[in-house]
Amino acid sequence: MSTTSTIAKGLDGIVAAETEMSYIDGINGILEYVGIRIGDLSSNSTFEETVFLLWNRRLPNASELSAFVNELRAAYALPEGMVERIGQLPKDALPMHVLRTLVSELALSDPNPNDNNTKAAQAKAVRILGCAPALVACFDRHRRGLEFVAPDPQRSFASNFLYMLNGSDPTETMVRAFDICMILHADHGLNNSTFAARVIISTLSDVYSALTGAIGSLRGPLHGGANEGVMHMLNEIPSVDDVESYIMGKIQRKEKIMGFGHRIYKAKDPRATDLQSLARKLAEDTGNADLYEKSSRIEQIMERELAHRGIYPNVDFYSATTYFCIGLKLDLFTPMFALSRLGGWSGHIIEQLSDNRLFRPKAQYVGPHDVPYTPMDNR
Amino acid sequence: MSTTSTIAKGLDGIVAAETEMSYIDGINGILEYVGIRIGDLSSNSTFEETVFLLWNRRLPNASELSAFVNELRAAYALPEGMVERIGQLPKDALPMHVLRTLVSELALSDPNPNDNNTKAAQAKAVRILGCAPALVACFDRHRRGLEFVAPDPQRSFASNFLYMLNGSDPTETMVRAFDICMILHADHGLNNSTFAARVIISTLSDVYSALTGAIGSLRGPLHGGANEGVMHMLNEIPSVDDVESYIMGKIQRKEKIMGFGHRIYKAKDPRATDLQSLARKLAEDTGNADLYEKSSRIEQIMERELAHRGIYPNVDFYSATTYFCIGLKLDLFTPMFALSRLGGWSGHIIEQLSDNRLFRPKAQYVGPHDVPYTPMDNR
Repeated sequence: MSTTSTIAKGLDGIVAAETEMSYIDGINGILEYVGIRIGDLSSNSTFEETVFLLWNRRLPNASELSAFVNELRAAYALPEGMVERIGQLPKDALPMHVLRTLVSELALSDPNPNDNNTKAAQAKAVRILGCAPALVACFDRHRRGLEFVAPDPQRSFASNFLYMLNGSDPTETMVRAFDICMILHADHGLNNSTFAARVIISTLSDVYSALTGAIGSLRGPLHGGANEGVMHMLNEIPSVDDVESYIMGKIQRKEKIMGFGHRIYKAKDPRATDLQSLARKLAEDTGNADLYEKSSRIEQIMERELAHRGIYPNVDFYSATTYFCIGLKLDLFTPMFALSRLGGWSGHIIEQLSDNRLFRPKAQYVGPHDVPYTPMDNR
Repeated sequence: MSTTSTIAKGLDGIVAAETEMSYIDGINGILEYVGIRIGDLSSNSTFEETVFLLWNRRLPNASELSAFVNELRAAYALPEGMVERIGQLPKDALPMHVLRTLVSELALSDPNPNDNNTKAAQAKAVRILGCAPALVACFDRHRRGLEFVAPDPQRSFASNFLYMLNGSDPTETMVRAFDICMILHADHGLNNSTFAARVIISTLSDVYSALTGAIGSLRGPLHGGANEGVMHMLNEIPSVDDVESYIMGKIQRKEKIMGFGHRIYKAKDPRATDLQSLARKLAEDTGNADLYEKSSRIEQIMERELAHRGIYPNVDFYSATTYFCIGLKLDLFTPMFALSRLGGWSGHIIEQLSDNRLFRPKAQYVGPHDVPYTPMDNR
């Protein structure tokens, strides 16, 4: 009755979409956004400019950038009543579940949430990206028993988030470090959450539905949740001298070392290279040099032991130290990834809408056939 | 720099997972749940028993069914404070956006929302399936300015929903019709929303994230949203005598006829066959015979004109008339689909978790390479 087909488990190796946004050369450890090396962007660009680049496939001129930045800043404010609703949430709720719920809820204050033409979809993406930092900061202050700090439209995306979170002026070093993290995490081909966003929008649903699904995907420990795992590991190792025995023990027990290995990269993730120098500088500046030393020692051991198998540090490895030194709590690490990736997800949603075909693969049915409905008395 | 690969657009024909739940033979118009023909289930089973079947791959005996039913009924009640929060929502919000938001929000009152072992995942699925009808009914009454009607744990899933929605005892015919709709929509292979749920859970995220994503996918007009489209079409046709010219006009203008055609079925969807007799009976009983007559006339014309191209009625075609005769408002049609499909989605989530591999396809990059970062002054 059924024919047997090859199952593309995890869709490994299947090309499921075209994109003009990011290019990954996993063998040589290269990542480009619209052809520009990620290192050139992290050295020279800003998150706002990078999002413009991803959405428009070119760098903006001065007036275009200023218009885009103003549009984004105009979207910093939360919808009416949202601060009060966040204030009702259980304080022990997990920030990724909160962020997913609140981004979904933004649709309820949009008079036309289902509008999917390019202009409307992009306006919704700006709206969500603009106020997502306030959603995260507002919930974090609520659970700490602190008053909401209203967004400041004079500030950049990075500066505004740190200002709302801490209620004080962030240092320039912090803002730049955070901005670089936002640039580095903004897009990365058809990773799971981006793919989820494209799958969901392909029913011609809406930007809110697709972004909500993507946030849910990113939450998982096999995806964005991994940066939390790195920090747990660093906390478990008492000192730099304990790294060797800790890591060798894990390798011998064949346990996964968080922050290493990637389906695509068989070389050092170029984002890890950028984050490494950032993490070192921040760790020194903030009195956390031991954290960087531990990380660096882990990388040396892993290189000695596992580089021959193509296992290298990925983006999560040094982002953990970076976020820790910026002063972020552990369960805000993945929400930070989400804030940045909202830029990439939105670009992919608009790309998918521009040449849509419903994602509808097949399942191989492996159960019985022609089973009778047995009446209850005979079961 | 890049190699060209074949793009599996929409993943058409790609087998992305194994399942023991439903089997579709699109050529012969057969649908089985765990080997049992859908018609046997709609004639003999209940939604509760069907969900047990899908989750356990066998029919329950009397005590197993009773235990499962009791577990589900114990989950009918909404978490503390939820009725009040729903009462704050804008009355013009769209029910699918509301349902997506509220299912996501259920995670915030779960002390361990990320627990993914089979038992925990199944308990979360019961919790969400149990109270989702109350979420829909509570919002609908709120927007109509009516008091919330608390769920009645003495009632079946179908009876309880209709009772909460209308605040009165539904007739047996209504309850049975609604129950059959729930059975027919519960699972259907790797449709887009089910696939979205499996993609999201494959990061080892959580049941809430995966179901929230699936609801977002179902909302789209190329998926669950299509049953609304059928009703719009029926409303546009003044009388049975106008059907011929209306449909022929659409065919000549090459416009899509809502409720016809399916990626998988090249025969009449067996669920449409079951729904057709249900729709006829309900339409007669409720004084909506003209609605059924219009539908039936559309099907005749479509068969005459387009059956040679494999375009037949799908599940949405007669579910529109059925839901209308039950007294549901148009924008509740897709939420009804969601209530039922929560059963299938949850089964797939548990199936995916039992043999997980991260979904991570590739994108084909089609943009430029080696683009320099041009300084602002030179753009």
